[in-house]
Amino acid sequence: MNEVAPAWIAVDWGTSNLRAWAMGADGRVLAEAASDDGMGKLTREGFEPALVRLIGGWLGNGAPVVACGMVGSRQGWCEAPYRAVPCSPVDRAGLVQVPTNDPRLRVSIAPGLKQASPADVMRGEETQIAGALQKMPGYDGVLCLPGTHSKWVHISAGEVVSFQTFMTGEMFALLSEASVLRHGMQGATGWDEAAFDAAVSDALSKPEKLGARLFSLRAEGLIAGLSAAAARARLSGLLIGTELAAARPYWLGQRVTLIGAEKLSAAYARALALQGIEAKRLSATDCTLAGLASLSPQTETTR
Amino acid sequence: MNEVAPAWIAVDWGTSNLRAWAMGADGRVLAEAASDDGMGKLTREGFEPALVRLIGGWLGNGAPVVACGMVGSRQGWCEAPYRAVPCSPVDRAGLVQVPTNDPRLRVSIAPGLKQASPADVMRGEETQIAGALQKMPGYDGVLCLPGTHSKWVHISAGEVVSFQTFMTGEMFALLSEASVLRHGMQGATGWDEAAFDAAVSDALSKPEKLGARLFSLRAEGLIAGLSAAAARARLSGLLIGTELAAARPYWLGQRVTLIGAEKLSAAYARALALQGIEAKRLSATDCTLAGLASLSPQTETTR
Repeated sequence: MNEVAPAWIAVDWGTSNLRAWAMGADGRVLAEAASDDGMGKLTREGFEPALVRLIGGWLGNGAPVVACGMVGSRQGWCEAPYRAVPCSPVDRAGLVQVPTNDPRLRVSIAPGLKQASPADVMRGEETQIAGALQKMPGYDGVLCLPGTHSKWVHISAGEVVSFQTFMTGEMFALLSEASVLRHGMQGATGWDEAAFDAAVSDALSKPEKLGARLFSLRAEGLIAGLSAAAARARLSGLLIGTELAAARPYWLGQRVTLIGAEKLSAAYARALALQGIEAKRLSATDCTLAGLASLSPQTETTR
Repeated sequence: MNEVAPAWIAVDWGTSNLRAWAMGADGRVLAEAASDDGMGKLTREGFEPALVRLIGGWLGNGAPVVACGMVGSRQGWCEAPYRAVPCSPVDRAGLVQVPTNDPRLRVSIAPGLKQASPADVMRGEETQIAGALQKMPGYDGVLCLPGTHSKWVHISAGEVVSFQTFMTGEMFALLSEASVLRHGMQGATGWDEAAFDAAVSDALSKPEKLGARLFSLRAEGLIAGLSAAAARARLSGLLIGTELAAARPYWLGQRVTLIGAEKLSAAYARALALQGIEAKRLSATDCTLAGLASLSPQTETTR
């Protein structure tokens, strides 16, 4: 293994995964690493060893680590108290320094954001939002971050004005993998785009019918030969359409940018296009790295 | 153990549980037994031994067994093909005789019902419906059977005219036990009736907002001190209210009878009372037994 001597280290530490990037002074990624040591399976004492296991080889020259995500939650490594919106997505003054045992480690964690009313919180997405604003200076409009817990975010004058969270991704996972609907979706190959489109439109025009639509996926599989691919695409369309119905004030007549994984963002972009909204798309990883870079001490000294 | 010599044996065999009753010729319950040998954990070969393990002691005089529920599904012991609505809830002619190895066993299974459009199915509830109609001869109106998969059923002239299934119970279980919301509901003691009522009203007036309301349960727990009891009652109210919104044509201005477990039926009755509907309540077990009795050969000969 070649020696890696990064200027700083970027860490995205969520509930399920730990991802790290060795960053050069010029902003290039020198190396990357990932493990499934997510917050969800670690005790407080487990975080430092998990990080050293993953990036110990990068710590020779004492590069600082900047982390975001659930690692900063109350159940995480070290709590980074939420900042209240309206505010900039990240702020170096809000970084929390983590006490460590390994003398090579210098770790800071970015805090999440909270909104008093309606009550809402985010952790990790604020860093992606900061990265997106680095890439689109002066952006005014709406960001949508689809995922386990999708976020819709109003941006104005460089600040997060308001946001709203939908459990769409988690609902899809639970319903498709743990509910009675899984029987009709197992072994789905391919993606039925027509079924997705029809479900999005159906849910947008009658969002109150979601509860009634779900079991029909099972019933049509049993008595009308609905395919696994169509059932899965229709479930996705129903849930995303229901989200769009409730999030309408966020996208109707607005400039919208999607930040997310390739495939999921494509589904949201398609659903929005059906409503006449052409959304720009940014990679979640690129935004995370740009957001963490804006917080790294290295960036501070070279500015 | 005293010897039990039933006239016939009633069996309710669902996905998770197997329940059996030794019935006297006079309709009294002589003994009852239950196990967790539900359909979900049995292979086709496992059904007969599971039944004999539970009720072997009742088979001395060759009493016939009448069963309902998922035991008659394609993945069950012996498929009892769905009957199509509109039709009577049960029909002795539709009973399927199960081939058995134990010569003492004579088992018949009641088929479920299917509806072509909108596609829907039920298994087990048809027997409860038959029992309810035994208890309320000439009933014209709506039956609501809350549960894992709640059913709303239009009854007219002794027939099931149409029905609709909602995954409300399964959604509550998944969200309260397997989603991020579980963190704010663990160890809930008591029940916050005011939170339930407010959530029912909120969901009924804005059912399209369900997706947005769910995550707020987590956020309010984190930043506004929402109690576990209030969060749990509000989740229940949101889901039941959303079901009532979609099922409105079934209950608005209708005569409604609830068939279900005590506590769950009470929650539905309360939610309906908030809408000005005074629903009658019947015990699910009583209805199951009355429905199975109407199908037993014993009943036939004594009529």
